[in-house]
Amino acid sequence: MEIKKAMALAIEEAKKTMNDDIGGPFGAAILSPEGKIVAVASNAVLDSHDPTAHAEINVIRKATKLIQNHDLSGYTLITTAYPCPMCLGAIMWANIKEVYYGCNLEDAASIGFRDDLMYQIIHDIDQHKDILSLKSSERDTCIKLFEEYHEKNKTMY
Amino acid sequence: MEIKKAMALAIEEAKKTMNDDIGGPFGAAILSPEGKIVAVASNAVLDSHDPTAHAEINVIRKATKLIQNHDLSGYTLITTAYPCPMCLGAIMWANIKEVYYGCNLEDAASIGFRDDLMYQIIHDIDQHKDILSLKSSERDTCIKLFEEYHEKNKTMY
Repeated sequence: MEIKKAMALAIEEAKKTMNDDIGGPFGAAILSPEGKIVAVASNAVLDSHDPTAHAEINVIRKATKLIQNHDLSGYTLITTAYPCPMCLGAIMWANIKEVYYGCNLEDAASIGFRDDLMYQIIHDIDQHKDILSLKSSERDTCIKLFEEYHEKNKTMY
Repeated sequence: MEIKKAMALAIEEAKKTMNDDIGGPFGAAILSPEGKIVAVASNAVLDSHDPTAHAEINVIRKATKLIQNHDLSGYTLITTAYPCPMCLGAIMWANIKEVYYGCNLEDAASIGFRDDLMYQIIHDIDQHKDILSLKSSERDTCIKLFEEYHEKNKTMY
């Protein structure tokens, strides 16, 4: 029941911001472990000029700010569409284990959003160097930063 | 030359915030198509309680805010470590095609960051339902939102 209610709120928020040209047709909500709606958000990429301002990212930011903790273990995320790789990563970093989504990747593709292609690229990144090229550089210098972190943590714990 | 300089700035920023317990040992920078450094940022997950506040996400937010455009086509991202799936997604949404990274996924794993595992999960999500379960729900209602978007766009263009 709470999933249905949370989805309705996510859709309502998405419609509002879509019609105000704030962002695309995407909304999301987060339920607490007790099943209460703690945050609702929508896509705000156009208005904020922030390509990371997807509904799922925005709702995670809202909920974690509210509870002052980056860990959303036990919380549930509801989203109007299957999360893109960026949002799926954010969901995992937030330790959310349960997601309910409305539209699927094919539905999104049918209105011009190619999240499905993005998954294909990430699955086989070496075959898509024309789209995204990742090159190693300055590894030796960066390793020192990791070593400093390692030393710091040894001192702390 | 600019890559080396950008990496040095990214490392410097990461060291500072790491030592102030603002976030993990990760920094990033963005170069304009002309090769100028437009933004430098670091991981701020601990201080902001925002699990999405990785160095790459933060630097993309900074740069897009600065140029007031979500499209960073032609820009280059420099990061002290290979991007996690969330950040790789953000890089693609920003239309960045060129990335230089310092440490690799194995280096990150050696200090306790399991970005490599996250890639494995995304590659075969159906096999990892114990870690992240995605369930379809209310698709019919969400489809209407997509149809409304489609109609809106037909009116606009």
